[in-house]
Amino acid sequence: MPVEQMEWSEIRGSEAAGRTANKIRQVVDVDRITPNPAKPLISLGLGDPSIGGNLDTDPAVTEAVVAQLKSMRSNGYPPSSGLLKAKAAIVSRYSHPDAPLAVRDITMASGCSGALDLAFKVLADPGSTVLLPRPGFTVYETICKAIGINVHYYALLPGRQWEIDLEALAAFLRSTEMKIAAWLINNPSNPCGSVYSREHLMDCVALADRFKLPIIADEIYEGMVFSGQTFHPIRLLSKTVPVLTVSGLSKRWLVPGWRLGWIILHDPLRLMDGVRAGLINLSGTILGPNSVVQAALPDIFTRTPESFYSRTMQILQENAEIARECLEGIPGITFLRPQGSMYAMIGIDVARLNGIANDRQFTELLHAEESVVCLPGEIFGMPNYFRIVYCIPGDLVREACSRIRSFCLAHLKA
Amino acid sequence: MPVEQMEWSEIRGSEAAGRTANKIRQVVDVDRITPNPAKPLISLGLGDPSIGGNLDTDPAVTEAVVAQLKSMRSNGYPPSSGLLKAKAAIVSRYSHPDAPLAVRDITMASGCSGALDLAFKVLADPGSTVLLPRPGFTVYETICKAIGINVHYYALLPGRQWEIDLEALAAFLRSTEMKIAAWLINNPSNPCGSVYSREHLMDCVALADRFKLPIIADEIYEGMVFSGQTFHPIRLLSKTVPVLTVSGLSKRWLVPGWRLGWIILHDPLRLMDGVRAGLINLSGTILGPNSVVQAALPDIFTRTPESFYSRTMQILQENAEIARECLEGIPGITFLRPQGSMYAMIGIDVARLNGIANDRQFTELLHAEESVVCLPGEIFGMPNYFRIVYCIPGDLVREACSRIRSFCLAHLKA
Repeated sequence: MPVEQMEWSEIRGSEAAGRTANKIRQVVDVDRITPNPAKPLISLGLGDPSIGGNLDTDPAVTEAVVAQLKSMRSNGYPPSSGLLKAKAAIVSRYSHPDAPLAVRDITMASGCSGALDLAFKVLADPGSTVLLPRPGFTVYETICKAIGINVHYYALLPGRQWEIDLEALAAFLRSTEMKIAAWLINNPSNPCGSVYSREHLMDCVALADRFKLPIIADEIYEGMVFSGQTFHPIRLLSKTVPVLTVSGLSKRWLVPGWRLGWIILHDPLRLMDGVRAGLINLSGTILGPNSVVQAALPDIFTRTPESFYSRTMQILQENAEIARECLEGIPGITFLRPQGSMYAMIGIDVARLNGIANDRQFTELLHAEESVVCLPGEIFGMPNYFRIVYCIPGDLVREACSRIRSFCLAHLKA
Repeated sequence: MPVEQMEWSEIRGSEAAGRTANKIRQVVDVDRITPNPAKPLISLGLGDPSIGGNLDTDPAVTEAVVAQLKSMRSNGYPPSSGLLKAKAAIVSRYSHPDAPLAVRDITMASGCSGALDLAFKVLADPGSTVLLPRPGFTVYETICKAIGINVHYYALLPGRQWEIDLEALAAFLRSTEMKIAAWLINNPSNPCGSVYSREHLMDCVALADRFKLPIIADEIYEGMVFSGQTFHPIRLLSKTVPVLTVSGLSKRWLVPGWRLGWIILHDPLRLMDGVRAGLINLSGTILGPNSVVQAALPDIFTRTPESFYSRTMQILQENAEIARECLEGIPGITFLRPQGSMYAMIGIDVARLNGIANDRQFTELLHAEESVVCLPGEIFGMPNYFRIVYCIPGDLVREACSRIRSFCLAHLKA
């Protein structure tokens, strides 16, 4: 066509942009439902501990950043894969005799989501497949779709405290012709609130070793476990399997908006030099996270008092207990007691509820009738469940869960 | 092969990671050359104004962030495309009667590089082509390679103060069968130090209109122009062509490490609703830039005194003048006087220099003999040039440029 006859027409944007949708954000950012005007809205929706005002970060964390800001000496570009002193702080904190770390094993990223984005990008080519948990955090899929990576979902078993169905996964791996680039394991779990035992994690590592699968370990809820539970970093259990552990300040230090994350590369057989180089390359596209927060990381790690972490977990455990008290034993739903993180999944028996066909309808009606926002399990790949977040103040957790209770009882079939 | 016989082998990482390399960072992060021990090292390499200690950000900028930190109310997740009040601040600052803006036109990003990453991703599919300037900022290519976008380089003309060779570009566009997804125009320019006239920019817009090309306008050096020059935002000159302007705090506010960037979408014919939706989708993968800096943006814009911007430009202009005094008229090199930003490109006549075959050898020998770091033009796609950055203190600019002078004279053929 001659240039002179060209007309402007709609510019739709790339295919990648069209297929990249963060399901939680679509629900949480865009509010389509009118809550009950007689009841103040309570959200148990977004996993943001800073929202309720009851879980502020420690003043030492803030002061560490303020000191860097006032120095005016941390405003420049760090190396794209991260500031040396931030990497060194991570090495000091996370190195272990069973899995020693050096600064070359660390990549700083723009939040844990940025770390996940780098981890998927460095391991998986478009058209290859990664293994993701079902139910699981939605951003995994968002990132994979953006890159054009295929996803195979493996099942978590609600009846076994959300352990991975390793038998089914092994059967899949034996039978598939797909090229599997990585296996993502999330522990403690969003949305399940589960914390895996050492034994289960050892079984995971053995399976990864058998099928030669690098692990991406999403451990952003590291250490966020309730009494009686222990968090085991999976990399400490692997003598062969390469593990890219992703974590960050967001959850444990209660500053998700700061967007400081990192990748720890555990590579006991030294198979990953290309991946190390690839991480440096990929970090060159957006040049890393905020320099001031990176510069403050050594102080954040050393000056945050232990009492801060224990207070956070005490509040979360109390809130989880409040939710359990309100929701356990209600006909029509099944409360699965969480072991850590700040989430719980609750099963819905739609056969026992009037006018509710599925989990999305459950959460929409709950929003409209009781002004309580929860996310439907469908978002996490788990229909007939819904997720609650219990990091807001305990009295609001109690009020919201009481309303959920009333809602279920009101909709219970005779 | 039976699973039992599988062995671990090297994990090379994805093809995208392998082909994604930020050329500047490779040179600047990894120092392969030993400088002359008798001379202290001076770097005119990295475009980081905060490095020399002479160009600190304004205390009002720091205070705006400190206030948000101390409030403890800006630590949570903003919406993934940005905090409403940050977007509103950008609308207030940049909306113009000729190109009115609304908050829906703004996307916050992790630095201007993050904004570029989103802009390329939302407009271009893998296999499509974007037009990039030669010479040009290396991160454009880094990002495009990571996505799998093809690049066509269009020429900037050193003899016409680095204006775009629009005739050659038009000839290419008439003849090509490629699908061109976007045209990137960088003004003021890194690495050229050029500032385009209104007339030249109007010609660019007319060409984009003729060939129906959306423009990505990299205006991170907005307003950073020397006396007698005027910066014209290209979107204000377009009544038809969609423009995605990318900018951020890095250069003008002297805080490149903070990683706060943004995209302003100018869409006079309303062709870009899909692109708007795509930007929201894509921003969901890493969840946006630091929340505290976003929350501080309204105060940063309103409280930074005008004297701060003018002082910065006075220093840069004085330094550019120092470089000109030292480097103009030296046999073997051609100093091209910059009009803005903080860069200048200098031509090398290798035929007149002993033992120097090309620009990379020039900069490596300069580094080894005179302990002065500059980047070879090859990095920017422009062999037989080198780039200097003159944002460090004036006495160091003078010392470095005097050494470059000595170096050229020492290598001058008889």
